[in-house]
Amino acid sequence: MSASHPSAHGMPRGDSLLPAWAKETVRAILDPIVRLALAMHVTANTVTVLGLGITVIAAVLIGSGDLLAGALVLMGGSLLDAVDGALARATGGGTPFGGFLDSTIDRASEAIVYVAIAAYYLQGNAPTWPVLAAFMALAGSFMVSYSRARAEGIGISAAVGIAPRTERLVLIIAGLGLAGLAIRPALIAVLWIIAALTVATTAQRIWHVWRLTASPRG
Amino acid sequence: MSASHPSAHGMPRGDSLLPAWAKETVRAILDPIVRLALAMHVTANTVTVLGLGITVIAAVLIGSGDLLAGALVLMGGSLLDAVDGALARATGGGTPFGGFLDSTIDRASEAIVYVAIAAYYLQGNAPTWPVLAAFMALAGSFMVSYSRARAEGIGISAAVGIAPRTERLVLIIAGLGLAGLAIRPALIAVLWIIAALTVATTAQRIWHVWRLTASPRG
Repeated sequence: MSASHPSAHGMPRGDSLLPAWAKETVRAILDPIVRLALAMHVTANTVTVLGLGITVIAAVLIGSGDLLAGALVLMGGSLLDAVDGALARATGGGTPFGGFLDSTIDRASEAIVYVAIAAYYLQGNAPTWPVLAAFMALAGSFMVSYSRARAEGIGISAAVGIAPRTERLVLIIAGLGLAGLAIRPALIAVLWIIAALTVATTAQRIWHVWRLTASPRG
Repeated sequence: MSASHPSAHGMPRGDSLLPAWAKETVRAILDPIVRLALAMHVTANTVTVLGLGITVIAAVLIGSGDLLAGALVLMGGSLLDAVDGALARATGGGTPFGGFLDSTIDRASEAIVYVAIAAYYLQGNAPTWPVLAAFMALAGSFMVSYSRARAEGIGISAAVGIAPRTERLVLIIAGLGLAGLAIRPALIAVLWIIAALTVATTAQRIWHVWRLTASPRG
């Protein structure tokens, strides 16, 4: 997961929806974990794959209807996820494969969470709109990440936009947690918000790449 | 859509599931369209966006239950899609933005088709497994494309694997067409096949990048 790779995934701070104190708090929690992992010679890539495993556990909880537990496990997994980047930095800046694996596993983790949310709604009444919202949130999230990766392939940094992964993750954990506390519409609202923000961010990134590469005749 | 950008999206021919005669037939159909577009000074990027519009029409047909018409319109859109790459080559090889736009719109088109298929099943009885299959086919397709784009960002060509976009598109059009002709299980089967192939291809690509970048200590 990518909260941890600011050099590869970070947003200009001005664009972030998360306050600085939240990021600092997370850093304070992570510090002892990173030192423990360093002492145990655990590699960043091991932590990345472990994070995927925890996401799968969260997904099983969500799919079986325990949204609050799912949100808490997902939060734990996300903190662990921030560890891999910190570990990579502490051990010399990380490898190209580490960055690639981290990003790719991030996408798999997002997909797994949305599939679990869809599975949850499919077991209830009137699943149509919640499932379509989850579908669009997943598609939009992938479009945001894909447009950036594809732009980097042609040498352009497209790290613009208001829906980077950390913010999406905070939104989805909040939605799951609130729905788990019986405030059911919160999750559906969050799915639509993520869908809207990610589609807007993708359009913004296409526009950004166009502006940077356009020939004089447009 | 990317059938049209062999330099950016092509697979080693030996890996392709499509026979050479099929590709030749498509080329013969496209040739006059490309010449017409050239004569009318239509740009490749215009054709790319037009292809997205046709995909949206196909999605509306699929979502409203007319799977056969959706398959036919999607087929038309895919042929048109192959035109943009041919146009780009005919007018000097295309621009970096053209390749970026084409790939990004490809992903949006895939997402739109799968959302439409999910919407179709959500209106029927027992949508759970078909909708989850569509979800996983979308997620897997995105993972295949993302892992490749992300690998290109670190300078590695990850064009390995057995589920490139053209093959996925042929499968989905066949599934939609057969389901439209009342062979309903065909579409569900195709969704699961795409889900399995794309997950396998993603694993293959991660392995490929690992092999090419691994340090001696692994």
